[in-house]
Amino acid sequence: MDLLPLDWRVVLVRPRNPLNIGAAARAMANFELRQMFVVAPHDPVWREARSAVGAEEILRRARAVPDLLGAIGDATFVVGTTAGSRRNLDRAPLPLPELAPWLRRRKARGGAALLFGSEKTGLSNENLSFCHAIVHIPTRADCPSMNLGQAVAVCAYELARSGTLATRAPRLASHPSAPANLQTLDHVFQRALRVLDTVGYLKPKVREASIIKLRRLLLDLELTQSDARILGAILAQIEWGLSKSSGE
Amino acid sequence: MDLLPLDWRVVLVRPRNPLNIGAAARAMANFELRQMFVVAPHDPVWREARSAVGAEEILRRARAVPDLLGAIGDATFVVGTTAGSRRNLDRAPLPLPELAPWLRRRKARGGAALLFGSEKTGLSNENLSFCHAIVHIPTRADCPSMNLGQAVAVCAYELARSGTLATRAPRLASHPSAPANLQTLDHVFQRALRVLDTVGYLKPKVREASIIKLRRLLLDLELTQSDARILGAILAQIEWGLSKSSGE
Repeated sequence: MDLLPLDWRVVLVRPRNPLNIGAAARAMANFELRQMFVVAPHDPVWREARSAVGAEEILRRARAVPDLLGAIGDATFVVGTTAGSRRNLDRAPLPLPELAPWLRRRKARGGAALLFGSEKTGLSNENLSFCHAIVHIPTRADCPSMNLGQAVAVCAYELARSGTLATRAPRLASHPSAPANLQTLDHVFQRALRVLDTVGYLKPKVREASIIKLRRLLLDLELTQSDARILGAILAQIEWGLSKSSGE
Repeated sequence: MDLLPLDWRVVLVRPRNPLNIGAAARAMANFELRQMFVVAPHDPVWREARSAVGAEEILRRARAVPDLLGAIGDATFVVGTTAGSRRNLDRAPLPLPELAPWLRRRKARGGAALLFGSEKTGLSNENLSFCHAIVHIPTRADCPSMNLGQAVAVCAYELARSGTLATRAPRLASHPSAPANLQTLDHVFQRALRVLDTVGYLKPKVREASIIKLRRLLLDLELTQSDARILGAILAQIEWGLSKSSGE
């Protein structure tokens, strides 16, 4: 089994239960996961989780960030998790045991993020539009939804078992042929949105839905750093051209 | 992957935390595990676990039994779990991902039990002497011990993933060539102990340790129902002979 040098982090998006945050950290410590990000936690929830007696070192070093990009900006590969029951997805989730072969086929490398939504609502469609893949743990149809801490434990076990966990992997140098990270892609994407807004492509009624689709489309291109730079430059030129023509 | 028709139950031995019992039931419900036994729980712990709001159906149907044999008597295959850190074992635990291939090699079939010890102490050596195999979840050396609910979740996931979970498997008819269940083996074993005591084989100082070793030895013979009946009859005959000779 060839080891993928993926340096995984766990990202919890708006978790509601401090005990679950602690349980997630515990499961991470059991396997080789070290880095936890918590996106937009409620203040009291976050305080309680961090002040728990015997809190894991991982939890003490975890970072709370205001938005998803703050947690995944320097990652090059993002995987969202979803309950098997969820129906409003625009692509079929991969069963968890198939994630490792899928990552191998895609030659994924570098920093990777595994996203978990809040206990009540899961990940939003907007959250999922930042994901290269969506996985679900193959649970029973009549009891699909797992406890958050247990879901993190099962995913961490699977990453370890399947050999895709390599926390000591060197961070990729920003070589032109390295995959573009999410921060770089977001710069390109924001520029593209400005262009599309200028030319009136994004209709107000479906703007948000279009953005979600376009972001996914951009991810699917699997751009390298170099690709992303070229695309950004092209878009900048178009922006400039448009501003000139509207100024005339 | 050929499916082993193993009808798994989960057995918690003296769990201390009602929340963990609930979490174990939740994880069982997520996968196809239906039957939970709880051995010798503290009364208040058991009451609290069962009265939890939203308790799983599994928990309501779970059975509390006074001793381990009450939970595994009708099973033909027993697997104990242990933290990777434990050193005083007389055999090397199997890493969890290797359990399925091991079961296939042994042609295990029928009712199977997966045992989890208490949060504090794990399974005792006596508990483990009832086990055909010991597994451990491959956790980090510096953080080996998993939360009970998470350990149950990971094991349930692994049984499902590896295709060894088949809860709708028909119970084996008590065919002579079917594997002997733990209750039958225990009858044979108790008879053997009486014989060994009569002939003075079991020295008081090492009696318990010897019993543990001998029970494991008996399990390793992988007796069928028919074998067990023959061995039981032989031992009965020896008992009768000994009682006659001592009566003379």
